[in-house]
Amino acid sequence: MLIAKIYVTLKPDVLDAPGTTVKSALETLGFEGLADVRIGKFIVLTLNSLTKEEAAARVEEMCRRLLANPVIEDYRVEVEGAAG
Amino acid sequence: MLIAKIYVTLKPDVLDAPGTTVKSALETLGFEGLADVRIGKFIVLTLNSLTKEEAAARVEEMCRRLLANPVIEDYRVEVEGAAG
Repeated sequence: MLIAKIYVTLKPDVLDAPGTTVKSALETLGFEGLADVRIGKFIVLTLNSLTKEEAAARVEEMCRRLLANPVIEDYRVEVEGAAG
Repeated sequence: MLIAKIYVTLKPDVLDAPGTTVKSALETLGFEGLADVRIGKFIVLTLNSLTKEEAAARVEEMCRRLLANPVIEDYRVEVEGAAG
């Protein structure tokens, strides 16, 4: 089994409405010193019978076709574990 | 500035409906070999004027009070960068 971890985040210049909301909620709870809050997706895929290279290529394609919106999001992929 | 990265994920025994939906969508697109898909939140906080220890403690409290639901979610915190 291989584990692929995908971090999908809004591009830096895109307004992060959920992040802004969470920031004000945290401040309302009394937390100070918050300069910024950005919220993204953390996706963990468990993959069968692939080499690390095959898995990395396949996950990249999954990101391009479905998991990340290329207009407003960036993504980063990490593949872990040995095929088994 | 300090950067705190928070990974909020559903506990392993909790059904991940969005993950299940994404898994079937990926399979519909022709991607094979997917054993599981789990989707969580990736939150990046930028913090002012704190030591790493103060930041870690404060972020832990933010997770307990707002950012993670202790009943169904686990969270992991990483604090990076030097105060300043």
